[in-house]
Amino acid sequence: MTTGAQALMTTLLDSGVRVCFANPGTSEMHFVAALDDVPEMRGVLCLFEGVVTGAADGYARMTGTPAATLLHLGAGLGNGLANLHNARRARVPLVNVIGDHATYHKQYDAPLESDIEPLAEWTHGWVRRISDGTTIGTDTAEAVAAAQATPGRVANLILPADISWSEGGVPAAPAGVAGATAPDRATVQQIAEMLRSGERAVLLIGGPAAGERGQRAADRIAAATGATPLVETFPVRHTRGAGVPAMDRLGYLAEAAQAQLDGAAHLIVAGAAAPVSFFAYPGKASSLVPEGAQLHTLAETGVDVVAALEELAGLVAPDVEPRPAPAAVPELPSGPLDAANWVQVIGALLPENAIISDETNTSGLLLPAATAGSPKHDVLTLTGGAIGQGLPVAVGAAVAEPDRPVLALQADGSAAYTISALWTMARENLNVTVVLLNNHAYAILRLELSRTGAGNGGPKANELLDLARPDMDFAGIAEGFGVPATVANTCEELAEQFAAAVAAPGPHLIDARIPPLL
Amino acid sequence: MTTGAQALMTTLLDSGVRVCFANPGTSEMHFVAALDDVPEMRGVLCLFEGVVTGAADGYARMTGTPAATLLHLGAGLGNGLANLHNARRARVPLVNVIGDHATYHKQYDAPLESDIEPLAEWTHGWVRRISDGTTIGTDTAEAVAAAQATPGRVANLILPADISWSEGGVPAAPAGVAGATAPDRATVQQIAEMLRSGERAVLLIGGPAAGERGQRAADRIAAATGATPLVETFPVRHTRGAGVPAMDRLGYLAEAAQAQLDGAAHLIVAGAAAPVSFFAYPGKASSLVPEGAQLHTLAETGVDVVAALEELAGLVAPDVEPRPAPAAVPELPSGPLDAANWVQVIGALLPENAIISDETNTSGLLLPAATAGSPKHDVLTLTGGAIGQGLPVAVGAAVAEPDRPVLALQADGSAAYTISALWTMARENLNVTVVLLNNHAYAILRLELSRTGAGNGGPKANELLDLARPDMDFAGIAEGFGVPATVANTCEELAEQFAAAVAAPGPHLIDARIPPLL
Repeated sequence: MTTGAQALMTTLLDSGVRVCFANPGTSEMHFVAALDDVPEMRGVLCLFEGVVTGAADGYARMTGTPAATLLHLGAGLGNGLANLHNARRARVPLVNVIGDHATYHKQYDAPLESDIEPLAEWTHGWVRRISDGTTIGTDTAEAVAAAQATPGRVANLILPADISWSEGGVPAAPAGVAGATAPDRATVQQIAEMLRSGERAVLLIGGPAAGERGQRAADRIAAATGATPLVETFPVRHTRGAGVPAMDRLGYLAEAAQAQLDGAAHLIVAGAAAPVSFFAYPGKASSLVPEGAQLHTLAETGVDVVAALEELAGLVAPDVEPRPAPAAVPELPSGPLDAANWVQVIGALLPENAIISDETNTSGLLLPAATAGSPKHDVLTLTGGAIGQGLPVAVGAAVAEPDRPVLALQADGSAAYTISALWTMARENLNVTVVLLNNHAYAILRLELSRTGAGNGGPKANELLDLARPDMDFAGIAEGFGVPATVANTCEELAEQFAAAVAAPGPHLIDARIPPLL
Repeated sequence: MTTGAQALMTTLLDSGVRVCFANPGTSEMHFVAALDDVPEMRGVLCLFEGVVTGAADGYARMTGTPAATLLHLGAGLGNGLANLHNARRARVPLVNVIGDHATYHKQYDAPLESDIEPLAEWTHGWVRRISDGTTIGTDTAEAVAAAQATPGRVANLILPADISWSEGGVPAAPAGVAGATAPDRATVQQIAEMLRSGERAVLLIGGPAAGERGQRAADRIAAATGATPLVETFPVRHTRGAGVPAMDRLGYLAEAAQAQLDGAAHLIVAGAAAPVSFFAYPGKASSLVPEGAQLHTLAETGVDVVAALEELAGLVAPDVEPRPAPAAVPELPSGPLDAANWVQVIGALLPENAIISDETNTSGLLLPAATAGSPKHDVLTLTGGAIGQGLPVAVGAAVAEPDRPVLALQADGSAAYTISALWTMARENLNVTVVLLNNHAYAILRLELSRTGAGNGGPKANELLDLARPDMDFAGIAEGFGVPATVANTCEELAEQFAAAVAAPGPHLIDARIPPLL
């Protein structure tokens, strides 16, 4: 006989899910036990649900297929929500398995009882409460298919404990996945015609188009028509470096983005949303679409945006080749570390085929320029703006790609949210080099205080933006979680420690002490 | 002129809120700036929202008045939900101030945009979106009053950034608080009559009745009638020790609770819910009300339960005095630490008037017995079962009671959820002694694996319950967050380090290495 948990796990595996990031509780014990019945399913323990969900996101970004999570009741799902928000914005496929009390137990309002559905619905994804062992397989197969549809989404399976432990679970075959739809030819042709007009155009690409194929097509279009290509501010996975066409990202600060878009008569979005200011500021516009510019959507949600770009390139640039960025790395700098030179160390020493989980915030403003000619790499960014994503995403990326070097470039304030991700790096011996930009401040908020018109703030306000007193010793924290760590105060130290960390297997953390930008 | 933020903060203060635990973002910058305009409002920075909400809970448990929190958008509220669940179960007053995008900005679906109301509603509390500066004061006053009503609840104020920064904010006077209602005389008399029948009765008290007055009344009733008094499994604040009547708590494990309740013909609940099993187990009952026993509710929700107990005592035990527990502390044990002897060290050395935030889980099973005759103290427990509460609650309790020694007795697995609470202890120089029971396992889940009928688990299952490989060095982690720390392997070391930590000002962590129970 087969329990519900076994049927669920078998179906996950048959549908292509091979990893479960887990933080279990009592109501999930049969699901945990079923891991030993399904040897091909890898269980990865995380010490906090925000690490679980962020890791599943990072895994999906690299593989294109969902990982499962295992979460304990509503409170466990609650802890995972912030990184599910980032995953939703990234449109990655992800399958949450959320354990619940036994069906007959819920009426007793035990201490951990809470509503799960409203939290699951908050992900704007797919939600189903499993109601029977005979349908647990089809529910699971549909969850995976829902997650993997185009665009990807968060699928939530709520698993009552008694259905998990009862015999009579029936696995199911994979369900059909609704793939991307073909580009709309008329739209592509209209945009081609507009591009031939010679009016100034910006082509803003995002989503899957920030990969290499999409950028090659966008670059051909740019080369042939003079349009300015840009990648959205926070792409899910931006492939870049030597050999890939160089493409700037739209700035995070509205002022910078406005300068990039200024004067455009046409703004074409391809896999990206129409640009908006990340936050509202008094007297400033929310929309960043330039006054008077016409907005064109090359591919609606669900359309194969890379194919659309290639069709467009076929029309306006049939004989134009993409222009790969040349290999060109910065000189290794020297002296005390600061926000301008640490990125040059990374640019100079970036290994081949690296994956960068970038949550550097203000400290990383100059990172893209410093790595533009470094060996080809993928950058995973903070898609939804909910900080505490960087370390978990690095965990997931490293589980997905054990043979590629993973770098977690991580701001200090954000690191504190999900710091126990370091432990999972140590346990799984993941090839992650964490460079922790330790500037002892919520530097971005110091900037935002004046940008929002709140002035420079008095002493109490500034106290809330300050991470000194005490300074955090991230090297010590990392060692406590089992990750070997060093401290770098100079470019020379960072270079030496970075090269050693990347060369050695397993995780390492470099606590890079830099002054804040402000 | 007055901004919305200034009006809100002034009203909070006038309504009795004196502390704001904060983890702000860009949309809250004007609220942060307003701290300097309202000098009496204390801002306490926490590095994660789960620390913010848990600290506000701990503060309210000690003062009976709400603290405010400051949370950043839906994602920030999401991070705070698990400890809001615990606060809801504890029925403590708490006021969340949740910053949102500017009203006109929401339509643009910026990356951090999400629904806030469904998450706020999840707290089963009071929710209001502030819509205008002219009503921001009355909204705030009503929020505080809603939080402080009987029973207490979580009040959620959603504050759009533009209302926060705009001039024209109008503060308001405090709103009337709906206090407890008087006990129902007929109910009290019926229960008195039943108690005189001589049939075996259990009196289960909880909520405010777990304080000293409630227990004194319960003990008089027990002494006069032979009823067995018990305190609910996870009381919000249990006052106990020498001079207070000794009262066992209902066991966490259903088997233990059933043994305590076995044979009762009557079960009287006073401020406690009818007892239920924390989780469901195959073939076991969910309700712990003994078969055939009659359930009596002394005080419905909203009724002054302490007054009800005192009225009942006046009827059945008019001339009976409560029986204070004698002062009697364990001998100081010696040798390697284990789950049985570390509690004796605490019992032997517990300082006068201590506050214990207890999240020891399996490691603390013997703690109540070892501290029963120690100097009078308050125990704050894991009211909602969502782990990661212990360290944040200790932060809030220490902010509320700077002159009392606070102990955070903390399991290792749970500590990882909200570990950055240590940093706030260091920054605020809080008198917290953390004893970290480092047993390298989710020991409770090892127990639950077999209790749920999932057997002993195979190697993969057991891997997910194991916190070794690598062992966490919590002393190193604590030092990294700025808290002085030591390691204790023996009773002698624990005793020496504990006495020193309690005697010195500011926070200390003792990483107590003990073998797991299983």
